[in-house]
Amino acid sequence: MSFFPASLENLIDKFASLPGIGRKSAQRLAFYVLALPEEEALAFAGAITEAKRQVHTCRICQNLTEGEICPICSSDRRDRSTICVVSEPKDVLSIERGHEYNGLYHVLHGVLSPMAHVGPDDLRIKELLHRVAEDEVEEVIMATNPDTEGEATAMYLSRLLKPFNIKVTRLAYGIPVGSNLEFADDATLNRAIEGRTEM
Amino acid sequence: MSFFPASLENLIDKFASLPGIGRKSAQRLAFYVLALPEEEALAFAGAITEAKRQVHTCRICQNLTEGEICPICSSDRRDRSTICVVSEPKDVLSIERGHEYNGLYHVLHGVLSPMAHVGPDDLRIKELLHRVAEDEVEEVIMATNPDTEGEATAMYLSRLLKPFNIKVTRLAYGIPVGSNLEFADDATLNRAIEGRTEM
Repeated sequence: MSFFPASLENLIDKFASLPGIGRKSAQRLAFYVLALPEEEALAFAGAITEAKRQVHTCRICQNLTEGEICPICSSDRRDRSTICVVSEPKDVLSIERGHEYNGLYHVLHGVLSPMAHVGPDDLRIKELLHRVAEDEVEEVIMATNPDTEGEATAMYLSRLLKPFNIKVTRLAYGIPVGSNLEFADDATLNRAIEGRTEM
Repeated sequence: MSFFPASLENLIDKFASLPGIGRKSAQRLAFYVLALPEEEALAFAGAITEAKRQVHTCRICQNLTEGEICPICSSDRRDRSTICVVSEPKDVLSIERGHEYNGLYHVLHGVLSPMAHVGPDDLRIKELLHRVAEDEVEEVIMATNPDTEGEATAMYLSRLLKPFNIKVTRLAYGIPVGSNLEFADDATLNRAIEGRTEM
């Protein structure tokens, strides 16, 4: 015997299927949504339907957008000679937050991961090669995460890009600004020494 | 400038409005839902709408149900002379899981809390009094949580029920089964000693 009504059980199941949401949290969330005023609950449901219907990937950079081409790719104030390659749409947000980079992006939608059966064909790699071949690109910055898979992906791409005779760069490794040497791990500290710059 | 499409921002906002979900988690969940196959995303939206439309409170015990009267209240195998009073629908689940209790329930939908401006009129108290007055109730078990507010609510109700001349009981306090005396807090241990039973 199930103790909750079927439609409530179903809603709990749906929440529990989300990443990082356990059964108890799913219950809590479902009860919360049930207790919302009618229109707010319907607005939640509508937000899912709407986002799913409206959001597509930009034809050029593969970032998420509602139009055919995203605001960054269609802006005339961005430097079109530089492409920053990231693995996920949220990484674009992180870099934009710095207000330092003014070029374009390319979102791979993942990283190479033999363990998870993600190969080159599962990423938006041919779209990147197409851009480099067709557009006036001078530099590609690899901004995948500094972990094993991000490294491997950056390495793989840099080899693919070699024939195009453009500059391929990688984000600098080093100690984070404002942190403490005491807390830096060995690998980071070694990279910071290797990559030291003249003052 | 917002870096995500408006409908995606809206979905992130909706997830972030849920209790215990921060901005970063909300982003992660929204991306996850966007990456779902069309039909699964729509099923999620449908589950919210459906639960909101179908689920009501039982006319008798105020627990959540899809019909007018919940399966427990309409079962003829339950002992109708006992009512167990709990604060939330999920507490019914907890007690049912034990397969020990065979009476009916009454869900208050909250506890008295002057700090949160929850008074007697915000809980399903008059529905409980009505049941005690009209039905053949012999015992009411207070099963609100063993915290300050749960205690106060149980105390308040037990006073209200006095005139009806029925048995009003409270769940036993004591050391949890399978635990270790070493880890029991003082209040629990004192209650366990007070409530000791003959062997």
